[in-house]
Amino acid sequence: MPPRIGIIGCGSIGSLYAAHLASVAEVHAFVRRPEHARTLNEYPIRVTGLHKLEGKIHATANAAEFPDCDLGIVSCKATQTEAALGPVAHKFKNGAVLSAQNGLGCEEIIADMTKTKVIRGTTFMSGTRHSDNHVQYELDTETWMGPFEPTHTPFSVVKTAADWIIASGLKAVALEDARPAQWSKLIFNASVNSVAALTELPHSAHYAQEETFADLGHLLHSLINEGKDVAKALGITLHEDPWEMNKIGARTDHPPSMLYDIRHHLRTEIDFLGGAIAREAARINHPAPLHTALYRLIRGKEESWTFESKGHATA
Amino acid sequence: MPPRIGIIGCGSIGSLYAAHLASVAEVHAFVRRPEHARTLNEYPIRVTGLHKLEGKIHATANAAEFPDCDLGIVSCKATQTEAALGPVAHKFKNGAVLSAQNGLGCEEIIADMTKTKVIRGTTFMSGTRHSDNHVQYELDTETWMGPFEPTHTPFSVVKTAADWIIASGLKAVALEDARPAQWSKLIFNASVNSVAALTELPHSAHYAQEETFADLGHLLHSLINEGKDVAKALGITLHEDPWEMNKIGARTDHPPSMLYDIRHHLRTEIDFLGGAIAREAARINHPAPLHTALYRLIRGKEESWTFESKGHATA
Repeated sequence: MPPRIGIIGCGSIGSLYAAHLASVAEVHAFVRRPEHARTLNEYPIRVTGLHKLEGKIHATANAAEFPDCDLGIVSCKATQTEAALGPVAHKFKNGAVLSAQNGLGCEEIIADMTKTKVIRGTTFMSGTRHSDNHVQYELDTETWMGPFEPTHTPFSVVKTAADWIIASGLKAVALEDARPAQWSKLIFNASVNSVAALTELPHSAHYAQEETFADLGHLLHSLINEGKDVAKALGITLHEDPWEMNKIGARTDHPPSMLYDIRHHLRTEIDFLGGAIAREAARINHPAPLHTALYRLIRGKEESWTFESKGHATA
Repeated sequence: MPPRIGIIGCGSIGSLYAAHLASVAEVHAFVRRPEHARTLNEYPIRVTGLHKLEGKIHATANAAEFPDCDLGIVSCKATQTEAALGPVAHKFKNGAVLSAQNGLGCEEIIADMTKTKVIRGTTFMSGTRHSDNHVQYELDTETWMGPFEPTHTPFSVVKTAADWIIASGLKAVALEDARPAQWSKLIFNASVNSVAALTELPHSAHYAQEETFADLGHLLHSLINEGKDVAKALGITLHEDPWEMNKIGARTDHPPSMLYDIRHHLRTEIDFLGGAIAREAARINHPAPLHTALYRLIRGKEESWTFESKGHATA
């Protein structure tokens, strides 16, 4: 009997997992919009781009209809974890749940809600969602997976989940310790996203430029070094050098996700990116002045969208 | 014979100086737009608000018509000093020039251009400009004035200029050393303007809030402390505590000038505010990581207004 896999949040990443896994598992998606569920029940998810395939899954927006699963994959935005997972959190008691989200801190929320075995996940995989059942696969990087330490997830559980993902045609690596990979991406992602949110520049050449005093590359370098120092103080040896990742990304002009959020006045994932580095540093009394400063600026920026002056002069 | 005073840049601050000084001096304004000059030659400048008066001055947009002056007051934006003063810079050879501009670094530019005695000035005075010849006087604080050290301006010259300003009905104080006053305002102004530029929040209660980890008041406090440390390292004892100035300002919801610039995609004065603190710190090898970081972010933000991706993906 194929495993039963539940996908929480069927955006571009969730759709890529769902469509691929449909070939090796019974896939159920839990989504917010009933019309999204109706489309997915009527039509297969179509993948174009790097892979060309169709995957037929089950979907519902009604928690009562969602079955118990062997594996959950949470692929909603970090800020939406509680809302998206909440109604079906108890359906994974006898399985495990993988966080395929940005940053740091989602695993804690998932563990708290599901009371089950949690898998730390980090993915750079990316795609563009063209409709409720069409996603274009663009970047086919590995999903790095490892036990979430507080839930004592056995490595065999991680390995089995990784094998399902690999069998579906996606790339995955099971790691005894997934923190070096997660922190490499966290530091990269936190630094680039914070700068994008505040400057509104895409990931352009500016991010790697270090010639004159005013150049933004100096700031990226300092943010990345600060993140590396925090990781080191936590005893984590990085998997890749985030500065090298930044230099490569700076050639793409890719708009980081937080830039989209800022432009559309959507709550950002800053609490799970720069805010997570700042918080972890504060927890161990290690300095992280730059990530902390940018975290507070972005929170201030979010507040500016709803701020109304209480009758004072605003000339 | 009354002194002849030249006003460079007749925005709200320049108009307030010009209209008041007209009662004790022959005032000539050098302005950019010919129609602005025509209006000022035809009608007096009308001051409303804290003072109610009218002052008749001469004005021109043609440097050839601008006379030699006993005192110049440069009241354009710091970023426009070269353009605004350039054509008439040689008209102050036998007098002195006061910088009534924001931040640090204008005196150097003025001294270089005019080859005359320069006066360091700092003013918190503020007004709202309603038309080319109507300004509302809102905040009647003192102009702090002192010798600009490199031009060896005698204190008696500063004193005479201050006396003219005082005789005109405005407040001014001549100081043997104006750097403590200038740096107090610089640190306040740099910290508040940088945060306003990046968060797009006016000078609201957020700026003084220090309860939770994410609160913006912590960042303002750190920026101000960092500025104070740089001043101390330069041997400057502050005139007022910028943190107290910030707490008072945070009750006003006033939009700092850089917020206006950011909203209208106008080049900001960051080079003369946070950038000046960062540069001074770098000059003496003193750390100023926060002002330096915010300086680079704001320069990046300015670049985002004209950035065009060179054909890479921007999906």
